[in-house]
Amino acid sequence: MGWMKDETGLEKCAANHVPLTPLSHLQRAAKVFPDKLAVSYGNHRTNYRDYHDRVTRLASALTQRGIRSGDVVATMIPNLPAQAEAHFGVPACGAVLNTINTRLDVGTVSYILDHGGARLVLADTQFIELAEAAIAALDGEKPQLIEVADPQAGYPATGRHPEYEDLLQEGHADFRWMMPKDEWESLALNYTSGTTGRPKGVVYHHRGAYLMTLGTVISWRMVLNPVFLAIVPLFHCNGWNHTWMMPVLGGTVVCCRDISAKAIYDAIADKGVTHFGGAPIVLNLIVNAKAEDRRTFDHQVEVFTAGAPPAPATLASIETLGFNVTQVYGLTETYGHITECLWDETWDALPQAEKAIIKAHQGVAMPMMEDVTVLDENMQQVPMDGTTQGEIMIRGNPVMKGYFKNPKATLKELSGDYFHSGDLAVQHPNGYIQIADRAKDIIISGGENISSVEVEGVLMAHPAVSLCAVVAKPDDKWGEVPCAFVELKDDVTVTHDALIAHARSSLAGFKTPKTIIFQELPKTATGKIQKFELRTFAKTL
Amino acid sequence: MGWMKDETGLEKCAANHVPLTPLSHLQRAAKVFPDKLAVSYGNHRTNYRDYHDRVTRLASALTQRGIRSGDVVATMIPNLPAQAEAHFGVPACGAVLNTINTRLDVGTVSYILDHGGARLVLADTQFIELAEAAIAALDGEKPQLIEVADPQAGYPATGRHPEYEDLLQEGHADFRWMMPKDEWESLALNYTSGTTGRPKGVVYHHRGAYLMTLGTVISWRMVLNPVFLAIVPLFHCNGWNHTWMMPVLGGTVVCCRDISAKAIYDAIADKGVTHFGGAPIVLNLIVNAKAEDRRTFDHQVEVFTAGAPPAPATLASIETLGFNVTQVYGLTETYGHITECLWDETWDALPQAEKAIIKAHQGVAMPMMEDVTVLDENMQQVPMDGTTQGEIMIRGNPVMKGYFKNPKATLKELSGDYFHSGDLAVQHPNGYIQIADRAKDIIISGGENISSVEVEGVLMAHPAVSLCAVVAKPDDKWGEVPCAFVELKDDVTVTHDALIAHARSSLAGFKTPKTIIFQELPKTATGKIQKFELRTFAKTL
Repeated sequence: MGWMKDETGLEKCAANHVPLTPLSHLQRAAKVFPDKLAVSYGNHRTNYRDYHDRVTRLASALTQRGIRSGDVVATMIPNLPAQAEAHFGVPACGAVLNTINTRLDVGTVSYILDHGGARLVLADTQFIELAEAAIAALDGEKPQLIEVADPQAGYPATGRHPEYEDLLQEGHADFRWMMPKDEWESLALNYTSGTTGRPKGVVYHHRGAYLMTLGTVISWRMVLNPVFLAIVPLFHCNGWNHTWMMPVLGGTVVCCRDISAKAIYDAIADKGVTHFGGAPIVLNLIVNAKAEDRRTFDHQVEVFTAGAPPAPATLASIETLGFNVTQVYGLTETYGHITECLWDETWDALPQAEKAIIKAHQGVAMPMMEDVTVLDENMQQVPMDGTTQGEIMIRGNPVMKGYFKNPKATLKELSGDYFHSGDLAVQHPNGYIQIADRAKDIIISGGENISSVEVEGVLMAHPAVSLCAVVAKPDDKWGEVPCAFVELKDDVTVTHDALIAHARSSLAGFKTPKTIIFQELPKTATGKIQKFELRTFAKTL
Repeated sequence: MGWMKDETGLEKCAANHVPLTPLSHLQRAAKVFPDKLAVSYGNHRTNYRDYHDRVTRLASALTQRGIRSGDVVATMIPNLPAQAEAHFGVPACGAVLNTINTRLDVGTVSYILDHGGARLVLADTQFIELAEAAIAALDGEKPQLIEVADPQAGYPATGRHPEYEDLLQEGHADFRWMMPKDEWESLALNYTSGTTGRPKGVVYHHRGAYLMTLGTVISWRMVLNPVFLAIVPLFHCNGWNHTWMMPVLGGTVVCCRDISAKAIYDAIADKGVTHFGGAPIVLNLIVNAKAEDRRTFDHQVEVFTAGAPPAPATLASIETLGFNVTQVYGLTETYGHITECLWDETWDALPQAEKAIIKAHQGVAMPMMEDVTVLDENMQQVPMDGTTQGEIMIRGNPVMKGYFKNPKATLKELSGDYFHSGDLAVQHPNGYIQIADRAKDIIISGGENISSVEVEGVLMAHPAVSLCAVVAKPDDKWGEVPCAFVELKDDVTVTHDALIAHARSSLAGFKTPKTIIFQELPKTATGKIQKFELRTFAKTL
């Protein structure tokens, strides 16, 4: 507590104390990188001068349309330029950005619009009917709806609403951004995917997003002018904050409406993409791509993967293709990634299979975090023995302010000086965290805990398996038994019994799935497998 | 001002708001990089586990010796391990670090100890007599004196004082660091070099130092595990904060008692040094090194240079030797560097001479700064025309809290929302700042302003000139005329008249020096030429 005996005159003032906000990054980029390519999407290519200009006009136009400080502005847009612009333009008029998942049903979107109180919605033409229906279902005052058309992708404006490009023209290029006066002001409102019950509104502050960007630069080994492909939807943890990060490096955001193996390979080969983040399912797309969709490239692509531990078999395959994969871990409540499987070059000499096992660890606290560790139910550190389970606990500035209009849940999840992740994990002797399972994904069979992740890892190692998920199936004798859902690769097959035999060769009997269902797996917009659906289905088997 | 309509329960708490401090970096490094080499000095090689342990013991021992939160602990140590450890250990017990320039006279050191109120001094054996004399000259309570011996460099302990290594043994390895509760708490107290009058005590806060470290990583293109050679004394802006930065990257600090061309080349070739900072005089050392002191190396060394604009001729020479030089600019009041001459790769194709001219610009705001620009006396932006002069004005979190016990000077320098640098500069059309001169270094001759930097640049381009400084000499007719002091390279010579003719070939007559004195230039500990001495001398000519 370094207060000196005489601190007269040493108070904060405008010269030496500026609230931290990612808005500062774009203001600086417009000055120091004016001619660098900022956003690229087909024939839309804006440099930082123009990006800043469009953002300024957006903020100005929103103000003219009555948006005031603290108001919520929602978006329903894929990872396109307007979505990136909203990340700066909405807070630049003092408003709070609420990016809504475009794959939700009308009822849930309507719930979010009502709960968040959005006063204006920017919606892509592809999702305009969803937006219209969700707004129609609202009681009381309805938000303005602005349509973001995308003619180059076959989505011309419907003509039913004001258009985004016209909105920008309403705005003034000399509008003065409303910078936060306090870095604790709200920046974004992100609803959790809500696997059970209503989604909760996670509130981000400017300070947390600013620190996310600087810490990520370090962990992702980024130097100036990276080329980032936006795969993770910006409506999921604001795409892990990478859009806010790019201006500090003068980097380029490459947009893509639909993610496919071909789109990813093309972006790498044609646009020089150097970095992207994605769920393990994206890694599977790349590994299992058809020969005609693949492209060759000379550089190494740095990939952050998160959402679920990637299967060691997938990791082992993808690295031979020119990708360096780093497993990161986080939640909506933590702005995205807050641990990383930091690589130690002494591990380079290990056999590929062992490397892949380490790479599937969630790892250690990222540079901007104060502490990420595994505690027992008494909030005591668990032994770092790779065996003892506890809950991942998180402390640091990139932790949400709390849940919007839900102080009870906020108090519960932020108690005891840590955010409670709800994820069960072990810590290895080197401190690296490895997720055992989400608490609700644990299968309890005859009193024994079974990690669904462990069983999935074994199934994924079978050459015919493309993707799988293991959940609990109720069982009269054992309480629960593991039930596997499996997607096979194209043109390969395996029988039910052969796959069970494969699992049994690596697993204890009680961990071996009793049932295997071959089907396409239900997934969220971010590629997370929707285990709750499978769990519900397994109960009917 | 993004305060939402209902922010109930969204207040800060321990889970989501942690005061920013560079102390966090070392705490994390001890966990994630325990076996990486942290500090290297001859046979002293500590990894992060041991570095953290020594720092913890230091903090504990200081506490046991009565050091309390907000107390000042001074050091008089070259760039050696104990000086690096003090950067963490002193604040880890809540105290404020006051690194004192080891080349000051007894009177000034005594003044600083008295003004800062140091309660304990860590002094290297080489400077123990200076410390003893300065303490003896104090009235009132005297600080404890701890001797930091360096037997491997021929400085065994005198036996007159407690020794540093014994102090560490007094401390406990399980001491719990006193982390700041408020990031505005004071971290360091740095006295300005005080070219006129008494030095002023510049107070740094934890927040500013933390943000310096993250911003510098970006600008210096640092990835994990850099090897940093500490050339800039840690008593000068805490070596520009690089010791605080290294742990976030798992980097190594290479220490060196005496800086010479041979020491620098050896550190690069033998220790793999990748980064260092230094005044232009250090660049001159490298360029003018004797053949037998040079070493070859395979990698590119990234160099930050600051303190004065390096001469284009020096820049042009050094880059062919494997060094990439980036000009940065800052002051003690701004924690060191806050602008950088950010390189645009489109300039790669320019002739070497033009590149060197651009590289001598001070450039643009670094990533952690909010605004660094050139304003006129009415605090209005000057035209960016490369000609109109104004004063460099600085706003951002890495700006001092103020001057210790000098609220009047603080108020003056931090007025109008900017820190007033006192440096005159122009801005080019691309926004890049170029220093014309420190206000006091401007020569006014017949009503015309003469930039001493411009004249120096011309003289430096002469092949016989190693170093030079141009100051005002009083003149009955013109008011002032330029007077040059010149150091020649070994074994080369040039006559007074030939050098004046050389200058005249590039400069207007009124800018051409009327007098040239060949002599060794007086320099500060950081290699800055002490122009005030030359100015005083010039008055006697």
